[in-house]
Amino acid sequence: MDSGRLEALSDGVIAVAITLLVFNLAVPVPGHGSLGGQLASHWPAFAAYALSFLRIGIAWVNHHGMFRSFARVDRVILFLNLLLLFFIVTIPFATATLASYLSHGGPGAALAAAIYQGVFLGMTLSLSGLLWWSIRRGNLKPPLAGARARSALIRFARGNTLYAIGIGIAFVSAPASLLVSAVAAIYYMFERTPVQAAAHDPGSPQSSASHEAPEG
Amino acid sequence: MDSGRLEALSDGVIAVAITLLVFNLAVPVPGHGSLGGQLASHWPAFAAYALSFLRIGIAWVNHHGMFRSFARVDRVILFLNLLLLFFIVTIPFATATLASYLSHGGPGAALAAAIYQGVFLGMTLSLSGLLWWSIRRGNLKPPLAGARARSALIRFARGNTLYAIGIGIAFVSAPASLLVSAVAAIYYMFERTPVQAAAHDPGSPQSSASHEAPEG
Amino acid sequence: MDSGRLEALSDGVIAVAITLLVFNLAVPVPGHGSLGGQLASHWPAFAAYALSFLRIGIAWVNHHGMFRSFARVDRVILFLNLLLLFFIVTIPFATATLASYLSHGGPGAALAAAIYQGVFLGMTLSLSGLLWWSIRRGNLKPPLAGARARSALIRFARGNTLYAIGIGIAFVSAPASLLVSAVAAIYYMFERTPVQAAAHDPGSPQSSASHEAPEG
Amino acid sequence: MDSGRLEALSDGVIAVAITLLVFNLAVPVPGHGSLGGQLASHWPAFAAYALSFLRIGIAWVNHHGMFRSFARVDRVILFLNLLLLFFIVTIPFATATLASYLSHGGPGAALAAAIYQGVFLGMTLSLSGLLWWSIRRGNLKPPLAGARARSALIRFARGNTLYAIGIGIAFVSAPASLLVSAVAAIYYMFERTPVQAAAHDPGSPQSSASHEAPEG
Repeated sequence: MDSGRLEALSDGVIAVAITLLVFNLAVPVPGHGSLGGQLASHWPAFAAYALSFLRIGIAWVNHHGMFRSFARVDRVILFLNLLLLFFIVTIPFATATLASYLSHGGPGAALAAAIYQGVFLGMTLSLSGLLWWSIRRGNLKPPLAGARARSALIRFARGNTLYAIGIGIAFVSAPASLLVSAVAAIYYMFERTPVQAAAHDPGSPQSSASHEAPEG
Repeated sequence: MDSGRLEALSDGVIAVAITLLVFNLAVPVPGHGSLGGQLASHWPAFAAYALSFLRIGIAWVNHHGMFRSFARVDRVILFLNLLLLFFIVTIPFATATLASYLSHGGPGAALAAAIYQGVFLGMTLSLSGLLWWSIRRGNLKPPLAGARARSALIRFARGNTLYAIGIGIAFVSAPASLLVSAVAAIYYMFERTPVQAAAHDPGSPQSSASHEAPEG
Repeated sequence: MDSGRLEALSDGVIAVAITLLVFNLAVPVPGHGSLGGQLASHWPAFAAYALSFLRIGIAWVNHHGMFRSFARVDRVILFLNLLLLFFIVTIPFATATLASYLSHGGPGAALAAAIYQGVFLGMTLSLSGLLWWSIRRGNLKPPLAGARARSALIRFARGNTLYAIGIGIAFVSAPASLLVSAVAAIYYMFERTPVQAAAHDPGSPQSSASHEAPEG
Repeated sequence: MDSGRLEALSDGVIAVAITLLVFNLAVPVPGHGSLGGQLASHWPAFAAYALSFLRIGIAWVNHHGMFRSFARVDRVILFLNLLLLFFIVTIPFATATLASYLSHGGPGAALAAAIYQGVFLGMTLSLSGLLWWSIRRGNLKPPLAGARARSALIRFARGNTLYAIGIGIAFVSAPASLLVSAVAAIYYMFERTPVQAAAHDPGSPQSSASHEAPEG
């Protein structure tokens, strides 16, 4: 089974979810103070909009890189990918809730930030699950085995720790938790998928390992 | 006629419908009780959201498997597929209605659950119709004929019985009807399309039957 | 220039527009009368929803058939296709306006029906323009020339007359105008694009003309 | 890395954004004056809708032409393209704000027009950035170098000057600023991407330069 339609559905869902974020930006209405003042008072909505857009965009780049390194997909991958899409579809809701509660502080802001971080944690855990399953089944091209497979998985999945920490910090300080997730976003802006690394470094041992038998 | 654009339109409609489900999740507003309390009181919306997402996702997986087994598509398939998309597009409406009425009980909840089940019945009947027409026209690869064609169709279509039963049960108990449909969802999570079965069992008689003349 | 991305954008816009139609179906709210009664009182919204879905679906089928017969596309085709998409994007608005005004009768219903018909006239005129330009530039496969080109264009474009008549009738009777457009929809459910006809009738003179020089 | 999924995501986002513009067209409600009167009083919404649709459509045509001339894409291109999509996703918001404030005049209309122009300036600057980076890395087919690369980039990017001027004019007169952007739109309706020009003029020096070493 090739991944053409899986990628088409994923691109569609990501495109819709990323565009629906704009509904968080309530259009100002004339007669309720100056336009500039109205826009300034909605700064949390604009910040949450830009941050969520960036994080979905980074997830798309990593999804793209990951599926380029998958030689084939099976039914488990289809359902793991649906789990990923489930979290992505929930992001506009989590973003809107965060934007509503962030500037009010207190337990509402903490819970809203924890939900927001939790949805992104679910998203990157699903991505990590896709990589884990493909390594386990020997579906990567080139295949990875043994210690190299483990280190590739750890290299991708360790960013999740930051999101988990972000959830804990949310109950202490919602803005501080967003800073942690910004660091996680920067971690994932760089290549963390295994094949890319091999392709960028053709003389590495990883590359010469491409004919080893997969362990899965 | 190959199925490329049919799949592209279907993926697009499914991606939009699955993402629009998120609008059922009303964003809480500060000052109307605690955020946790507001979210808890909307549990039917969250449950309906997750259930509808899962069921559309399963339908997509089956649509994907089915069209991989179709050697070609004709104009009847294009229109049967539009009928399928019609039911899929209606799901966000049926889900929102169910979420509004489920916790109120009475005839409103019964009717809302019956509409909800009816839309999914229409969806799986349309999928069954696509399979029926392709078998009848000998458009499957490998083609199926006679008793094997009948058993493949029955294998896929019998899940519809559960949805039909679910409609009847809705008028007795809306939550019980949702349990029945959860069983139907689990039925369709596993392979029910003909070619997949053949591909997974290369020594089966079905596979060796691939050069028989189609009956359609 | 091949038509891959033109088709991808068109499928995306059609998928979104066809799914947004569901927003015309206002979700009933508990406590405003029985659910059945609320749904029954909104019958114009359901009828307009089903009719618009069918007509966009038919347009997609014809767009699909038409572009299968285009050997190549140029910049004029890109912009004619954007014009087509402009009308398609406007359909959810025209449908919602029709649903609001149809049951009130009077000049409001007449104008709403005329706008509704006008948007669909724009849609099929744009489709006709795509065919006209491709015939004129000799971009069909097989190419059509002279009297055969004229008759192919007339065969496709004459359905527009029905939509134009529908606009006129709208000012006399909005429901009668919808009946006329239903007839036009049925006209376009059958093959009206040139190559399909040739493919279905391989012994026809049209088919043997496939090596004639185009006139454009 | 080929550009297939980048184009799929872009087509998806553009399709959703262009279709969401229709939400700016508030559906009239019976009983608030005649339908014709209500529609006429909302003329800024219709004008902004048509103008934004045209400008996004033109950007899509140029994006299409540009990526046809890119031999390959790298990670920087993926992120520059996400920046482009960020501005496109913001257009429905900027359009709705402009439509609300345009007819009220004063500083609100000026700021709304400046935001509207600014979003489009961001969009075309991102497009220019994509071209600049691809020229710099020698990723065009045929590659461009030296003075020819500079003139190709200038030819595409100088339209941005008009948008920048439009922002300044917005603070003097919002409608005048829209006129300037209409001129910019017309500038970009014609071919401004380098390879197209070469393809249309096979005997040009640009075309014979296709084997020169890139400078990037």
